Amino acid sequence: MPEVIFSVDQSKSMREQRVPGHNRWHPDVPAVAMVRPGAEFRLETRDWTDAQIGNNDSANDVRDVDLTHAHMLSGPIGVEGAEPGDLLVVDILDIGPVPQQVGEAPGQGWGYTGIFAKNNAGGFLTDYYPDAYKAIWDMHGQQVTSRHLPGVRYTGITHPGLIGTAPSADMLARWNRREQALIDTDPDRVPPLGLPPTADHALAGQATGQEAQRICAEGARTVPGRENGGNQDIKNFTRGGRVFFPVYAKDAKLSAGDLHFSQGDGEITFCGAIEMGGFIDLHVDLIKGGMEKYGISTNPVFMPGNVEPRYSEFMSFVGVSVDHDTDTNYYMDATLAYRRACLNAIEYFKRFGYSGEQAYLILGSAPVEGRISGIVDIPNACCTLYVPTGIFDFDVRPTADGPKTADRGKCAVTSG
Amino acid sequence: MPEVIFSVDQSKSMREQRVPGHNRWHPDVPAVAMVRPGAEFRLETRDWTDAQIGNNDSANDVRDVDLTHAHMLSGPIGVEGAEPGDLLVVDILDIGPVPQQVGEAPGQGWGYTGIFAKNNAGGFLTDYYPDAYKAIWDMHGQQVTSRHLPGVRYTGITHPGLIGTAPSADMLARWNRREQALIDTDPDRVPPLGLPPTADHALAGQATGQEAQRICAEGARTVPGRENGGNQDIKNFTRGGRVFFPVYAKDAKLSAGDLHFSQGDGEITFCGAIEMGGFIDLHVDLIKGGMEKYGISTNPVFMPGNVEPRYSEFMSFVGVSVDHDTDTNYYMDATLAYRRACLNAIEYFKRFGYSGEQAYLILGSAPVEGRISGIVDIPNACCTLYVPTGIFDFDVRPTADGPKTADRGKCAVTSG
Amino acid sequence: MPEVIFSVDQSKSMREQRVPGHNRWHPDVPAVAMVRPGAEFRLETRDWTDAQIGNNDSANDVRDVDLTHAHMLSGPIGVEGAEPGDLLVVDILDIGPVPQQVGEAPGQGWGYTGIFAKNNAGGFLTDYYPDAYKAIWDMHGQQVTSRHLPGVRYTGITHPGLIGTAPSADMLARWNRREQALIDTDPDRVPPLGLPPTADHALAGQATGQEAQRICAEGARTVPGRENGGNQDIKNFTRGGRVFFPVYAKDAKLSAGDLHFSQGDGEITFCGAIEMGGFIDLHVDLIKGGMEKYGISTNPVFMPGNVEPRYSEFMSFVGVSVDHDTDTNYYMDATLAYRRACLNAIEYFKRFGYSGEQAYLILGSAPVEGRISGIVDIPNACCTLYVPTGIFDFDVRPTADGPKTADRGKCAVTSG
Amino acid sequence: MPEVIFSVDQSKSMREQRVPGHNRWHPDVPAVAMVRPGAEFRLETRDWTDAQIGNNDSANDVRDVDLTHAHMLSGPIGVEGAEPGDLLVVDILDIGPVPQQVGEAPGQGWGYTGIFAKNNAGGFLTDYYPDAYKAIWDMHGQQVTSRHLPGVRYTGITHPGLIGTAPSADMLARWNRREQALIDTDPDRVPPLGLPPTADHALAGQATGQEAQRICAEGARTVPGRENGGNQDIKNFTRGGRVFFPVYAKDAKLSAGDLHFSQGDGEITFCGAIEMGGFIDLHVDLIKGGMEKYGISTNPVFMPGNVEPRYSEFMSFVGVSVDHDTDTNYYMDATLAYRRACLNAIEYFKRFGYSGEQAYLILGSAPVEGRISGIVDIPNACCTLYVPTGIFDFDVRPTADGPKTADRGKCAVTSG
Repeated sequence: MPEVIFSVDQSKSMREQRVPGHNRWHPDVPAVAMVRPGAEFRLETRDWTDAQIGNNDSANDVRDVDLTHAHMLSGPIGVEGAEPGDLLVVDILDIGPVPQQVGEAPGQGWGYTGIFAKNNAGGFLTDYYPDAYKAIWDMHGQQVTSRHLPGVRYTGITHPGLIGTAPSADMLARWNRREQALIDTDPDRVPPLGLPPTADHALAGQATGQEAQRICAEGARTVPGRENGGNQDIKNFTRGGRVFFPVYAKDAKLSAGDLHFSQGDGEITFCGAIEMGGFIDLHVDLIKGGMEKYGISTNPVFMPGNVEPRYSEFMSFVGVSVDHDTDTNYYMDATLAYRRACLNAIEYFKRFGYSGEQAYLILGSAPVEGRISGIVDIPNACCTLYVPTGIFDFDVRPTADGPKTADRGKCAVTSG
Repeated sequence: MPEVIFSVDQSKSMREQRVPGHNRWHPDVPAVAMVRPGAEFRLETRDWTDAQIGNNDSANDVRDVDLTHAHMLSGPIGVEGAEPGDLLVVDILDIGPVPQQVGEAPGQGWGYTGIFAKNNAGGFLTDYYPDAYKAIWDMHGQQVTSRHLPGVRYTGITHPGLIGTAPSADMLARWNRREQALIDTDPDRVPPLGLPPTADHALAGQATGQEAQRICAEGARTVPGRENGGNQDIKNFTRGGRVFFPVYAKDAKLSAGDLHFSQGDGEITFCGAIEMGGFIDLHVDLIKGGMEKYGISTNPVFMPGNVEPRYSEFMSFVGVSVDHDTDTNYYMDATLAYRRACLNAIEYFKRFGYSGEQAYLILGSAPVEGRISGIVDIPNACCTLYVPTGIFDFDVRPTADGPKTADRGKCAVTSG
Repeated sequence: MPEVIFSVDQSKSMREQRVPGHNRWHPDVPAVAMVRPGAEFRLETRDWTDAQIGNNDSANDVRDVDLTHAHMLSGPIGVEGAEPGDLLVVDILDIGPVPQQVGEAPGQGWGYTGIFAKNNAGGFLTDYYPDAYKAIWDMHGQQVTSRHLPGVRYTGITHPGLIGTAPSADMLARWNRREQALIDTDPDRVPPLGLPPTADHALAGQATGQEAQRICAEGARTVPGRENGGNQDIKNFTRGGRVFFPVYAKDAKLSAGDLHFSQGDGEITFCGAIEMGGFIDLHVDLIKGGMEKYGISTNPVFMPGNVEPRYSEFMSFVGVSVDHDTDTNYYMDATLAYRRACLNAIEYFKRFGYSGEQAYLILGSAPVEGRISGIVDIPNACCTLYVPTGIFDFDVRPTADGPKTADRGKCAVTSG
Repeated sequence: MPEVIFSVDQSKSMREQRVPGHNRWHPDVPAVAMVRPGAEFRLETRDWTDAQIGNNDSANDVRDVDLTHAHMLSGPIGVEGAEPGDLLVVDILDIGPVPQQVGEAPGQGWGYTGIFAKNNAGGFLTDYYPDAYKAIWDMHGQQVTSRHLPGVRYTGITHPGLIGTAPSADMLARWNRREQALIDTDPDRVPPLGLPPTADHALAGQATGQEAQRICAEGARTVPGRENGGNQDIKNFTRGGRVFFPVYAKDAKLSAGDLHFSQGDGEITFCGAIEMGGFIDLHVDLIKGGMEKYGISTNPVFMPGNVEPRYSEFMSFVGVSVDHDTDTNYYMDATLAYRRACLNAIEYFKRFGYSGEQAYLILGSAPVEGRISGIVDIPNACCTLYVPTGIFDFDVRPTADGPKTADRGKCAVTSG
């Protein structure tokens, strides 16, 4: 294994680590280490909430989670010679949960998937599932099972939910400006349209004093994916993948975290992946002036990993951009179309004995694919959701006999 | 091969066939044939425009196409015993261009991809590419090349762009009502928000007289995918695929057409697939009462084909729901995110010598995948576009040397 | 579709075609057509036995087949400019059973798999299954079922069992010499060690008179694969595949036949594929001097097709080079190891209700993979056989409950 | 990670571990631990030679290796309730090189591939490559590169070369008897036909005194795969794989070792894999009476792993059972056919600048597939070798321009 250049003691908060990480995007978070192009190294990471969620049967911790802590990132790592306009080439050599340790933090043999409550972040189907729910997953090598979701076992597609370079000061200012403009269109919305900077529970790495205060006050929240990558939740950033990140700040300043043991396209429950702490092994290189050479200005480009789990049979669900509850047509709305495909899938799996919440948790975390199938056939966008049949230990294909219903247990719910 | 129960003479318009098809959705279009559950049969089809587009080097025909003819469908086929509430099981046994014939219609050895003009239908990137363009493809077995897109050769993922069952009278009324409501929000928009019924060039199959007039006046336009399937443009409805269609009308009344030799997820140029006439071999069966048994009410469910072309290396592009041209943030807008991913891809391939139009045509027709990667990270939806590197006869991966630019010719443009 | 340059009337023997093919390898069989490098064309083919086998429930025709007729080949096609030392590049553009025809020949909607009797050719397991058996397959697009093998349905991997260039006169002489030397080591063996030239039922294409007599007397039998390709039975020569054939004779003289709707690695029942007449669409090109350039002297090189059926779960069987019946050890004998893997698989599937003959027929024709797993661990070669679980409509995985046995019918047997 | 029930200190020989393993098969090697059905556990392993090979540029250590030490196995693990006739279900949950350690043993960041000398074990092509050679590989997550094989980089398919249950006393006696009978047919052969028991450097685990002496004198050598599995070198026993082992001895007594970071089908250089120490995480279960239930008597059955590296384009090589050097025909000899395919591949890659030894080392270790393509076409067996084109950083496909030759360095050779 390569040298660990960001280490984490999983028994402690990210704040208490010998070298703490950060949870805001800002060009002035100090690099924790400098590496040369060609270097290979390991980052150890905390789960995104800094271990606010426990391995238990109550969803109260999900309901009550404080999101101003998120996402706890490991880094930034400076790359010698990286300048704005370059492409930072990042190979994902390996990734996994916390190795060779015993303890209670997420990633130490287990992970979790949460449905967030509507009044605390919500999720893709929050109007249908407004309360908090949780499933705990046990790791078995590259496979998982959950006591909250019996009948399901699958190989994960492990990846960093969040990885990116630092923004420039100018870019940071633009982010905050454009997101505030959006928030201002409906400032009281629940859940909110966006998350503005807040110093509450902000962590600025090794910065101290006024510098730290400034970073915490200005730093962009980590929730959305942006020009620097960030929280893109692309499940195909897996082993063997290569990402070309735009460099916006001197030394590139690469940070990563929010590892997912597995996730379906969309990560639909908001905390839809199997969340964990762990490690990620990276190789970095530079293409000098690569942004201009390849016409890359606003987002990373990547080559997906080639060691995905291999499934070849799917139950697939279709959605179009019609709200069937009210029979209202929307114009080419792929978000709505995918939502309807997800709702259709949930309704389907309920017929086999799962609760809606359970099915929702499965769709968020299993290696499902979500595709934009048709995006020009006015007025209806058409999205499709592909669920591997092999993740179930029973036959989920439609037959003349109808679905075999069984008691599928229950997921963790809130109390009190 | 199975019995042909809907035959087409490719030298004639669909209107002039011995048994004509139809180009509107209506429960009263008479069935052209009745089959039993378990039957296998072949439908022959015209290309969606009824051969308005020619194998030449001008895009004028695309610019001037009359869309009230579209989509010319073969059918409807009645299935004995099918009643509302059943699921119609449709296996796609085989599909292909016009076999063993010589002639000038699309599908007779060639197909086309068009970018539609903004003032005549438009497309996914119509604000960026408002004019009409075209590429002609030559078929080589299951592969294609185009004189308008040198450097590209790939195996297609052949499928019916349009296949579905008939709506009930009630469902048809709801469609027309909800789509008109949408259109009414901006009735003068160019391109329009939707297409209301029109008798212009409507074709009601074997219906005659007043019955035909009524069907043409009421019948829903075929452009959008809806509860009955229809123009969903799901590229994975390919050989070996199985679709479970809801049955809304007596005898199910299955129709199909708009065959695509190949298409990328989204079919982004509107006429983005490689359009052709051809044949499709189907097997049908019934799951009585299947809609209730499996909780299927609003859309088909399917199992994708298992003979897709096999590619394993991709250049992938990311987009988030920010309009970078104006630096404006939108809330969880997957449509915008996918549009940005497409624009990023086009910009990338331009560096290798293609024009933007050429790159756009490639993305519409090649077996690219479009995924909804993140749909909960407020406010930015994240979509990704996967382009197989193996479709190019040169290396499209980023390197320190920069892209190898070459003269890539040009696509068909308009004149006069 | 491309121009047909070798056409077949399936109601007639290959001998009675307007332009007959050939069933021996000889450089002097006259070319039936000349094509230029870059050409695309279609060959129509008869099944390998020239339709000696019928769509019925008796294996008598398999038992009594006259193999001196085999293999009926379409060609040879001359390629302008091809000279010894070149590589002939052959793309397999498309391939399939007899299209759009009605009739009784194999390939007209059906095909067959035969187990040959030990005293008439035998097969890989002829000491275990010495009698003749047969299964008839019905084609459903790219899938097949058999009334003789209920419970099985799969997508075929269609390919030419036999395709190759003509030998030079010198090479032909060497073939006949070395094979006779092998035969001479045990000339009375049943089945024989090899098949020497025989004029019985030999067919020399358009050659006539003494020239035809000489070709028939000298021509090499078509059964084995040799330096020119020939009857290699490589299932991966499928759609999208490219083969680089050595050129040994002027004009290359390419011939093909013995099409298989599907076949497993090894084609273990001798006539183990699903045999059919049909068509194959090819594109040819030349690499001048390619044999020396690429060090290719004794066999073709190829790039396998990329539209194989996609299966991802397998039951796999192991065999080592020990004859367990007699507990005798053989040295690194991969043939024996694969035979034991096949016997192990047959024994396994018998527990689900199939007869041994049925299981043997399935292994010959389904898209199974046969791998040489270990070939250095003295003294035991280790081979493995991969059977896709998805070809069965019941669960074939081992469970604590044991196999679900059922009545699986029976295959065609001999009588009288 | 699961509990480590067999631990290894990589700085010490297997003989000096706190709990030593074993290097002979014998039912009386004491179990090092007992587990229950359903248990998950980790075994740590030494490389197969017990670290006789070093990370250096000389092949002298390969030339001089003492094979009586091999293979150092971790175990045996007893499974409660396992009795002869049961099937032991073994899931391969995870596997990898030595984690989180620094040191000089194979698996600590590096591995090796060796070509063994003809007078010390030899290999598949030992008549062509009689001397010793070596390549050192550097691990980069799931990928490898070698300073001895520039231009190659690939994702490994990691697996245990050796895993199996203990034989019964009776089975052991039969093994020794039948192998001695083979050896006796040519007792002076170099390399030998088989390896009889020898007490030299034998290791009997925790057995002591006379019991240990008896085990060492009687124990079967570990080189060949046999009825209990053992050294089968099946590369598809990878992550996610499930093996069903016959149980021959009370408690099953499972042992494993000889981990391979990667290996091609056949492991053709004898030590053809990338050899390493490491860990393997297993889950075990029982199917009581499973051998009879499923007709399994002589070999394991398995379901291959589903997280293999994904490659989709191959250069494939054909061989038939003719010795072209002497133009001698052999009868259905798959071993020879695969050897010819390997020789053809080596000749091909030499044209790109590799030495024959280098090409041989690549074929042994890269994820190549070796298939038995035709095994009934008398007299020529036909085998094929599939090499992924993506493992090379240059284009290895044939073109009219001929191969791009370059200086490809050299592998480690012997001296003195």
